[in-house]
Amino acid sequence: MALIVQKFGGTSVGSLERIEAVAELVIKTQQQGHQVVVVVSAMSGETNRLLNLAKQIDSTPSARELDVLLTTGEQVSVALLAMAIIKRGHSAVSLLADQVSIKTDNMSGRARVEHIDTERLHQELEHNRIAIIAGFQGRDGEGNITTLGRGGTDTTAVEVAGVLQADECQIYTDVDGVYTSDPRIVANARRLPEIHYAEMLELASLGAKVLHQRSVEAASRYHTPLRVLSSFKPDKGTLISYKEGCVSNNPVTGIANQEAVYYQFTTSNVKMLSQLLMALAKLQIEVDMLHQWCRQVGIFDYAFTVHSNDHLVVLEVLQSAPFAQDINEMTFEQGLVKVSVVGLGIKSHPQILAQTLDALAYEDIYPKLMSTTEIKASILVAELDLQRVVNRLHVTFLP
Amino acid sequence: MALIVQKFGGTSVGSLERIEAVAELVIKTQQQGHQVVVVVSAMSGETNRLLNLAKQIDSTPSARELDVLLTTGEQVSVALLAMAIIKRGHSAVSLLADQVSIKTDNMSGRARVEHIDTERLHQELEHNRIAIIAGFQGRDGEGNITTLGRGGTDTTAVEVAGVLQADECQIYTDVDGVYTSDPRIVANARRLPEIHYAEMLELASLGAKVLHQRSVEAASRYHTPLRVLSSFKPDKGTLISYKEGCVSNNPVTGIANQEAVYYQFTTSNVKMLSQLLMALAKLQIEVDMLHQWCRQVGIFDYAFTVHSNDHLVVLEVLQSAPFAQDINEMTFEQGLVKVSVVGLGIKSHPQILAQTLDALAYEDIYPKLMSTTEIKASILVAELDLQRVVNRLHVTFLP
Repeated sequence: MALIVQKFGGTSVGSLERIEAVAELVIKTQQQGHQVVVVVSAMSGETNRLLNLAKQIDSTPSARELDVLLTTGEQVSVALLAMAIIKRGHSAVSLLADQVSIKTDNMSGRARVEHIDTERLHQELEHNRIAIIAGFQGRDGEGNITTLGRGGTDTTAVEVAGVLQADECQIYTDVDGVYTSDPRIVANARRLPEIHYAEMLELASLGAKVLHQRSVEAASRYHTPLRVLSSFKPDKGTLISYKEGCVSNNPVTGIANQEAVYYQFTTSNVKMLSQLLMALAKLQIEVDMLHQWCRQVGIFDYAFTVHSNDHLVVLEVLQSAPFAQDINEMTFEQGLVKVSVVGLGIKSHPQILAQTLDALAYEDIYPKLMSTTEIKASILVAELDLQRVVNRLHVTFLP
Repeated sequence: MALIVQKFGGTSVGSLERIEAVAELVIKTQQQGHQVVVVVSAMSGETNRLLNLAKQIDSTPSARELDVLLTTGEQVSVALLAMAIIKRGHSAVSLLADQVSIKTDNMSGRARVEHIDTERLHQELEHNRIAIIAGFQGRDGEGNITTLGRGGTDTTAVEVAGVLQADECQIYTDVDGVYTSDPRIVANARRLPEIHYAEMLELASLGAKVLHQRSVEAASRYHTPLRVLSSFKPDKGTLISYKEGCVSNNPVTGIANQEAVYYQFTTSNVKMLSQLLMALAKLQIEVDMLHQWCRQVGIFDYAFTVHSNDHLVVLEVLQSAPFAQDINEMTFEQGLVKVSVVGLGIKSHPQILAQTLDALAYEDIYPKLMSTTEIKASILVAELDLQRVVNRLHVTFLP
């Protein structure tokens, strides 16, 4: 008997028919002799519907009240799924954040989980009940409703699996696993049967939209095996754990891509960069491919990229923060994409960057920036070249 | 400075425009120097939409999970109203059942309020914040979500007003007060400026759909003045308190009507009736106009009425309960209506019943059953005669 946490995303519970199908799947897992805890998202479209109501009232609605509003989406899902399981003669109970004490900090809209009680969950499991937890939501120290931000239901699932020391945390979504590259870009992208947390972390942060970065980090911290699978056509999916993947005689696991904006500026204030990075970190904006060079004594040039979603906020900081007066000759460039070659084997294969550049040269493409870490090599290219770049790299490293 | 509890029903918050209007109304009350606690229903149509989702999953959905589902409706309303008030630069905070500790028994779908904490509410009011409570919902002793049944948001408002010892509990609805009779039936029905709890209780239970009986009972228990008014065209509405109404030189306050079903049966088991009444009480079905007569030694005839909404459930009990084998010659009759002449003055005017019968005879109508209490005289007539009966009684008693 294993303890399995199953998470179902918005499309997996996107209609009453889908909820009935999920009920069957959960029951089947229990009938195989397992204890099951389920974590559920809002029905697809519901969160946007609610957000739209809020925006019609106020374009910048109260963050506390927005969380009160949005969490109703998951509450609807857990109640309906519990009904569907109970109708089939099995025991189930829906549980909200306060009922399992999912305690978070008080950052409305992007709270972090601080503590989860396992007592209630163990009680339910001992009574052979399927526990269905509303994802995405928490309660802060004063009992206010909070939400966990993008990918929040994954976070709930992984945190719950972690504190329960679950044998596996299964993330059911609308894709059937993690691929060597985006199948919409690379026709013969292959599903990876297994992958290491570190690789998944890079793939997640680089644009493989399967899993949110924070939940992969949490799973690796708890040593919880994560499995990504489809609720539409159940199969083995992709297992994410500390085991190196099967493709590991190959140093490269996948090719990821992410829309990026490139910034470049000059300053003579040496302290400015750390102030900028701190300001962006507070806004949870990830700065990537950071480069510094010294034009002449006391004058520094900087360049970095951010996800294109963050562009307007970054621009605001660069133009209006207290330290902005020390920024000179600032330019930015949109329409770019960061392509990354990811694999645990990269650290022991220093030729990967050279091979990457060779592959690009074959296509007559020369990257604007590049950077490497122990497990990835990234290059910044024009979005127009995305298709050619990713396919060439896929042919090169994952033939 | 007064402490005022304002309750807004589903039609009052039925659209975003209506929510904005309610925000203005609440702010205006605060600006008049009052402390304001608001209690809100789900947007009109929302509860039915949710109920419909549940019924599609299971025609008899889990009662616990149904409550989890339905309470999202009020949660959406409180968040949106809070946003609308905050946008206007005023402080507001939405509060759910657990956040103000609205403790109930564990009867899912029809729970009774057992306790409400005032500490949090006083805190919010001291900080000059408008407290917006989700109506209709509670938490049982184990932290499960419960709902208070029909008229539940009124109940929340009255209970909150009671424990806060509010100066007034204002029930905003889609009618602008309590009338001497249903204006759709009696063209010159008049709004009553004031009315006594006891009269309102009879009018509520007899079909004046303005207020639910349970909330009138609770208000009278707490001695909280209740005011019924329209959120569409603000006016003084009708004040319900221990004061006798202005029309009180007239013994009759109003003429109410309610669709009814009439049952009649014979039994020789003397204990059967109490078993029947107990069974119906458990189902919260109110038995009215109960009559007994003894046909011969050891054989009893019984007759009673119930609200026509309860007909199918009552029939089921009469045909299938354990004591049903002792019921003989059972007949029932639908298409009836109970018309009641209500007024505190009735107890000191014993001629009211005679005048009622005279008025009916004038129309050549003879009631099937009649009954009187200290403050009402009721007759059972065919629904076809409703218009004529109510108008004749209105002319007679409220000329």
